[in-house]
Amino acid sequence: MGGMQTDAHKLTIVPEGMIADLLTRQAAFDAVEKVFASMASGEARNFPVVRAALGHEDALYGFKGGFDRAGGVLGLKAGGYWPHNLERRGLINHQSTVLLFDPDSGRVNAMVGGNLLTALRTAAASSVSIKHLARDDAKTLGMIGAGHQSAFQLRAALEIRDFEKVIGWNLHPDKLGSLAQVAKSMGVPFEAVPLERMTEADVIISITSSFNAVLMADHVSPGTHVACMGTDTIGKQEVEVALLAKASVFTDEVAQSVSIGEAQHAISMGLITETDVKQIGAVISGSHVGRQSDDEITLFDGTGVGLQDLAVADSIVKAAVAQGLATVVQL
Amino acid sequence: MGGMQTDAHKLTIVPEGMIADLLTRQAAFDAVEKVFASMASGEARNFPVVRAALGHEDALYGFKGGFDRAGGVLGLKAGGYWPHNLERRGLINHQSTVLLFDPDSGRVNAMVGGNLLTALRTAAASSVSIKHLARDDAKTLGMIGAGHQSAFQLRAALEIRDFEKVIGWNLHPDKLGSLAQVAKSMGVPFEAVPLERMTEADVIISITSSFNAVLMADHVSPGTHVACMGTDTIGKQEVEVALLAKASVFTDEVAQSVSIGEAQHAISMGLITETDVKQIGAVISGSHVGRQSDDEITLFDGTGVGLQDLAVADSIVKAAVAQGLATVVQL
Repeated sequence: MGGMQTDAHKLTIVPEGMIADLLTRQAAFDAVEKVFASMASGEARNFPVVRAALGHEDALYGFKGGFDRAGGVLGLKAGGYWPHNLERRGLINHQSTVLLFDPDSGRVNAMVGGNLLTALRTAAASSVSIKHLARDDAKTLGMIGAGHQSAFQLRAALEIRDFEKVIGWNLHPDKLGSLAQVAKSMGVPFEAVPLERMTEADVIISITSSFNAVLMADHVSPGTHVACMGTDTIGKQEVEVALLAKASVFTDEVAQSVSIGEAQHAISMGLITETDVKQIGAVISGSHVGRQSDDEITLFDGTGVGLQDLAVADSIVKAAVAQGLATVVQL
Repeated sequence: MGGMQTDAHKLTIVPEGMIADLLTRQAAFDAVEKVFASMASGEARNFPVVRAALGHEDALYGFKGGFDRAGGVLGLKAGGYWPHNLERRGLINHQSTVLLFDPDSGRVNAMVGGNLLTALRTAAASSVSIKHLARDDAKTLGMIGAGHQSAFQLRAALEIRDFEKVIGWNLHPDKLGSLAQVAKSMGVPFEAVPLERMTEADVIISITSSFNAVLMADHVSPGTHVACMGTDTIGKQEVEVALLAKASVFTDEVAQSVSIGEAQHAISMGLITETDVKQIGAVISGSHVGRQSDDEITLFDGTGVGLQDLAVADSIVKAAVAQGLATVVQL
């Protein structure tokens, strides 16, 4: 056709190995906080999540996409969980890649390694919830779970607030060493505790792959903020439903919270309704007051949304371009 | 961790501008025929399709993914329709990109321009249906619709069978010139006809964006094969429901055919049931006999599946690597 341009344009690639140098925790925090607010205002939305068991290598694979009109960010994260990667190939089990598209023309713009990015955006989400929902005088941080992701959560939390102590619990207490080391590296004392002593915590982050409640309502004192970061699938559960019934519940995305998030069980038992679950973005933007008293228990159900990945990837691409570190390919 | 490899690996990129030189119609045909058979045998499956109106540039955007265990192909096509691209940017309106992943590890392997690929895989699908369902003595090919995609359909059909004549109809007959030229270039006479004269055709390809039936049951003679290639959304319709009621109906994927394909209307009116719609792959693999008499009307409902895109993209990557034409980036 007459005025047709060629399809030639540039693709910016930021490989996995460069993410650690390009993505600061502060940049991840800022990107996640901003896109949560855009989700609450309706300027940004996530597309339905696709997730499939491949029937090969016991892998789970899928796509999480979204569009943030305010930020001009469109795309998806593709990838999943290959449970035998480490033993069979010496690769990490979570593998993902983010693709960004030009919202004006639909052409692909950027490809960004998604592995470390996912860990940092998930840690940023709990930190955002702590900033906006925890009591100002919170001093003791409780950690539930000691897997790969827990160290990212802890480091981000210690950066957002001046916690004076970290207490930790894990099903296998001998695995708590990595959390102790993170705390030590940031100059904060760490103590392994039984679950009953989580009542001492002002903020609790739960990051497990549990299918049964670990943290009970009796383990949580009035005024505590609880961030449930592990439940992202039907059937998973980290905390007793009674805790959701007595807490003020916030989430990244209500539709996910009530279906695949921590709220799924309290919802299906009729203990709370969908309207009881509020978007954290509304608190960030100021349209919801958030915590209303020092005795209130606030609970953040962090389910993980595609827009977090896209917002953080966009920030990585901008940093890579600004620092002249991006790989640019002519398409 | 101790034995952890780096994430470094290779990404093969085949830009849009190279597809025309790398993808033959025969290769597209072979890839689509093979993956249709794998779908019917259960070795390959498509994931749920994500499709969203962006609320920006009037664009439709989404993802079509799948996994072909037999072919070792995993991935997705992302992209969509930007209706103002041509007028505002001099770019084609359909924009898409294919990503392929290593099914063993989940790492991204290849990125392939998806625009021409989509046109050729769609044309290949109707050709595959003609090869397996049209009468051996088919001589006259009828074309309904004269948009961008119609020329691809016609060229592929003329390569798969020795048609002696092409007749064409379009809502605006003055647009039939491009089809006439394709026919001429392949040495076959072309005639613009009224719809009523489609009774002369042995094979009919319908490729429109219509929301109302264009081809009526009375326009189709006994023994004809009809390939409906335009309906891919709720509400679209190319042929009268009575035609599906009296035809043997085949499709690429039954779930899409009965929900967003041409069969959606006959299904919702109760004229046919889901079990009346057969997979073309079963005919290809020989587990369904296909056409059973010279008087039978066969109808192929081509809805377009992600596995077509992935199979063709995989064939393009292999050709690019074999010819030393791929762009390889170290990730």
